[in-house]
Amino acid sequence: MTSLSPTTRTTLGRKRNRAASDRETLYAVLDEALICHLGVVHDGTPLVLPTGYGRDGDTLYLHGSTGAASLRTAAGELDVCVTVTLVDGIVYCRSLNNHSMNYRSAVIFGRARALTGRDEKMHGLRVLTDHLAPGSWEHSRGVNAKEFAAVSVLALDLSEASVKLRAEGPDDEPEDVAADAAWAGVLPIRTVFGEPEPSADLPSTWSVPEHVRTRVSEAAAQ
Amino acid sequence: MTSLSPTTRTTLGRKRNRAASDRETLYAVLDEALICHLGVVHDGTPLVLPTGYGRDGDTLYLHGSTGAASLRTAAGELDVCVTVTLVDGIVYCRSLNNHSMNYRSAVIFGRARALTGRDEKMHGLRVLTDHLAPGSWEHSRGVNAKEFAAVSVLALDLSEASVKLRAEGPDDEPEDVAADAAWAGVLPIRTVFGEPEPSADLPSTWSVPEHVRTRVSEAAAQ
Repeated sequence: MTSLSPTTRTTLGRKRNRAASDRETLYAVLDEALICHLGVVHDGTPLVLPTGYGRDGDTLYLHGSTGAASLRTAAGELDVCVTVTLVDGIVYCRSLNNHSMNYRSAVIFGRARALTGRDEKMHGLRVLTDHLAPGSWEHSRGVNAKEFAAVSVLALDLSEASVKLRAEGPDDEPEDVAADAAWAGVLPIRTVFGEPEPSADLPSTWSVPEHVRTRVSEAAAQ
Repeated sequence: MTSLSPTTRTTLGRKRNRAASDRETLYAVLDEALICHLGVVHDGTPLVLPTGYGRDGDTLYLHGSTGAASLRTAAGELDVCVTVTLVDGIVYCRSLNNHSMNYRSAVIFGRARALTGRDEKMHGLRVLTDHLAPGSWEHSRGVNAKEFAAVSVLALDLSEASVKLRAEGPDDEPEDVAADAAWAGVLPIRTVFGEPEPSADLPSTWSVPEHVRTRVSEAAAQ
C-alpha cells in the first residue's frame, strides 16, 4: 500500500479521521466517477468547471476544451485543483446536527500540462475515451488530423493527492440513542445507467453494441 | 422568465449555444443536485471542496464546515465560485471526436458571507436540512445551543450565475451518418436512492418514516 502525499493543502480543515491515505482508494474513486471539477484561479478569483477526465497510472488526463485551455500560461501549464466526488448516501441521525453524507472524494493539486507531442496527446485522448465510453475507441470512427489538431488534452500528475471518505452509519449522541425519539439510518445513493436510446437517425437494423449494453448490466447489478 | 446575469466569467470559453439564460433552469439544477463544488483561492492557488448546500429564493446557503470557514477574510466574506453539475447521459457518436455528455451545470460567482445573526443562521440551517434531508427538520431532534454555536453557515447571492446544459442526441458529421459504420445514441444516467438501511442500534420496532420512504419511491419512479 503506497501512501499518498498529503500536504497542508490536501488536509486543510477536513476531519483527519475521514482521510484515506491509500493510493488504491484514490484510483478507485477516480476510476468510478465520470467527471471532475477543475478549479483554477482566473483574474485572482476562483473558477470551477465540470470537466471530463481519465486516469492512466499516476497521470490524470483532462479535456482541455472546457475553458481551461484558454487559461493556460505561456508555458502551457495551469495551476489546478481537481476534485472528484462520489456521493454514496444520506446519513439520517436522531439529531439534526449529526446528519451527514457518505461520500468518497479525491482532491488533486498540481500543474496541468497541455500535451503537444503527437503520441502523448493521442494516448491522452485514448485514456479520456476509455474512461467516458469504454469500447468506443475500437468501435467508433477514429480522430482525423483536423479533429486531432483542434482538441486539447491536459495531463496532471497524481503526486499531490488525497482522498477523504465517510462510509458508515449514523453517529448519534448516546443520549439521543437512548431517547429513541427519531429514526436513524442511511439512504443509499447510486448512479445507474438506464436503457440506451439509439440516435433518431440510426437505422433500425442496429442493435445496441456490446460495449454499451454491458454498462447497463453492470449498473443494474450494483 | 427572468434572465440570469452572465458576466465574462460565467461565459468564459464555453459553447454559447449550451448556455441557458433561464432562472427556472438554474433553480431546477440547484434543487435537484445534492452537493456543490466550492472553489476558493487559497495562498494564490485554487482549492475545490465538495460542500453541502441548499437554496431559498435567490440565496444559496453553504455548509461552512468543510474547510471554507477557515478561509474567510476578517470581514467574514469569501470570494467563491460554486459549481453544481448533474450528469444526465453519455452521448455515443459515430466519430470519437463527437462523443459527449448530456449534463446540466450551474456556475455561481460571488462573495459568500458567514451568517452571524441567530435568526438568519437558523434559517440557513433549515434550508440546508430541507435540501439534504427533507422532513428531518420536523422529525429529528433540533439543534441545541452548543451545536448551533459550533456550526458555520455561509450565504451566497445568486445574482451572478449561469447554467450550461446539453440535452440532446448524437451530433455526428453527415459523412459519418451516411457511412453507418458505428452505433450512435445516448446512455442515460440517473441518480437513485436505494433501500434505506436502518442504523445498527435502531430498535427493530421502527419502520422507515414517511419522509425517507417517499424519497425512494420518487427515485424509482424517475
